[in-house]
Amino acid sequence: MRCIRCKAPANVEVRRHRSAFCAACYPGWFRNQVERTIADEGMFNRDQRVLVAISGGKDSLALWHALLELGYSADGMYIRLGIGNYSQHSQAAAEHFAGKRGLRLHQVDLKEEYGFVVPQLRNQREGKPCAACGTVKRYHFNKVAVDLGYDVVATGHNLVDEAATLFGNVIHWQTDFLGRQGPVLESTHPKLARKVKPLYRLAERDTAAYAVIERIEYILEECPMAVGAKSLEYKDALNALEERQPGLKHRFLVGFLRNGRQAIRSAAPVEIRECRECGQPTTGEVCSYCRMRERKRRQLEARKAAAG
Amino acid sequence: MRCIRCKAPANVEVRRHRSAFCAACYPGWFRNQVERTIADEGMFNRDQRVLVAISGGKDSLALWHALLELGYSADGMYIRLGIGNYSQHSQAAAEHFAGKRGLRLHQVDLKEEYGFVVPQLRNQREGKPCAACGTVKRYHFNKVAVDLGYDVVATGHNLVDEAATLFGNVIHWQTDFLGRQGPVLESTHPKLARKVKPLYRLAERDTAAYAVIERIEYILEECPMAVGAKSLEYKDALNALEERQPGLKHRFLVGFLRNGRQAIRSAAPVEIRECRECGQPTTGEVCSYCRMRERKRRQLEARKAAAG
Repeated sequence: MRCIRCKAPANVEVRRHRSAFCAACYPGWFRNQVERTIADEGMFNRDQRVLVAISGGKDSLALWHALLELGYSADGMYIRLGIGNYSQHSQAAAEHFAGKRGLRLHQVDLKEEYGFVVPQLRNQREGKPCAACGTVKRYHFNKVAVDLGYDVVATGHNLVDEAATLFGNVIHWQTDFLGRQGPVLESTHPKLARKVKPLYRLAERDTAAYAVIERIEYILEECPMAVGAKSLEYKDALNALEERQPGLKHRFLVGFLRNGRQAIRSAAPVEIRECRECGQPTTGEVCSYCRMRERKRRQLEARKAAAG
Repeated sequence: MRCIRCKAPANVEVRRHRSAFCAACYPGWFRNQVERTIADEGMFNRDQRVLVAISGGKDSLALWHALLELGYSADGMYIRLGIGNYSQHSQAAAEHFAGKRGLRLHQVDLKEEYGFVVPQLRNQREGKPCAACGTVKRYHFNKVAVDLGYDVVATGHNLVDEAATLFGNVIHWQTDFLGRQGPVLESTHPKLARKVKPLYRLAERDTAAYAVIERIEYILEECPMAVGAKSLEYKDALNALEERQPGLKHRFLVGFLRNGRQAIRSAAPVEIRECRECGQPTTGEVCSYCRMRERKRRQLEARKAAAG
């Protein structure tokens, strides 16, 4: 197999595009894909400031790297979630990436600033903090972006992430979520940042290849809290089907964005107001982040009372 | 584990209902489920004549058996598809079931009456005749029902059949099909029979248990043409997810019927007219069955010409 650009022996194959590239040409192809997605979806331009949500994994660091190479103004943001070794390693990867290149990396430390860590947020029914962790991340990425005047928050969600989320929403017919899923979430309130997913058309192995070739030091560990999460089960199911029907994930997601989404009657647009407790945007009186913290506080008090 | 009705040792467990039954009580439970589905969906009543589509497998024979036990007026219909041993065995099972009980079984013989068999209808791209076979079955079940004045055609589609069809339509965002999928398809033309699926809430193992306990001699073979069919891949994917999330197929299908279907804008209702060739109902000038036969006829002529 030869690189379709320079005819040198190929290192990376991209089957769904019937293409292959050598290690010298691949990063250019990858960044072209990112650039085209940004342009096609009108995500942002070079005059705007982008805040990249960084986990320390391949997708978020590949995204940050590609945006900088493409000449965008992009800072990073990392949240210290307090998930043991996983968090220590991912923080180190994020700081190493930023430090080596002299980049700005904002950080929020849940334990120091808010007095809790993610493993304390386990849901009683499922025993997993994944849903609560999502709330934490959305809250802080949004707050920092708005407070510091970024135009947009970019996340590293890739094709299988998006397809698995879509799959979960379809399996449970969450028609409200379906009406709102997409690669660009517009801001509908001054305190709500615009959110974009420039890697949503790229496969997991595409970003892994980019990260490896560009010598990005990312952590390979998956979050230990996510083991057995439903989202991973949906990914497994889609990956198994993809083996037998190559291109299935892409067709599923793109078909939804082109046909499915329009066909689904979205619920009336939700009214956004400011949380009574923290002032952040919410659809209720009190935002889900404040409600979650209040539940946690009461639990801890009850435990103290029982122990004392 | 004990039977929830008579406390005898249980033979059949129905996990999603948290129930178990002995072999004496199980058939009553199964028929209650069928009766409740028929009533809930207004499928038919005891004054109407039902034509049951018979394949010779467990689902169609269990359905026919249950309808008769419940006091409905139900005849059977079998199509000789000409799929080698599989068709011979399934025809024998259908005839044996009807003969033993003195029931009326209508039959259509494709080879004798129309000059072709299903294995000749392989699609060039997929190498499978499954889609064409579906057209054949829909055509003849409908034609016989209307010609002989049956009020409704009942098929043995079970929960996983329906969930897999739904899954396939979702994966490809066939929004038109989605808008029309359901356990009852109303007649929209005098030559179009009403179609119902009384087993759509029952699992494959529920009908298998019923068929075994009621000593129904059905064929275990699956159609050899279907090996590798996409519908089977969707069933595998759903069954694998069900292992980890019990009840998932049921929630997926029922959630669609309750929420998803209404949320999907159905295309404008299709106008039904009569086929120019055969007079059967169609949305085009010529129905898909006649178009398929014409293609086949031309292929055979071209081959003869090439050979001669």
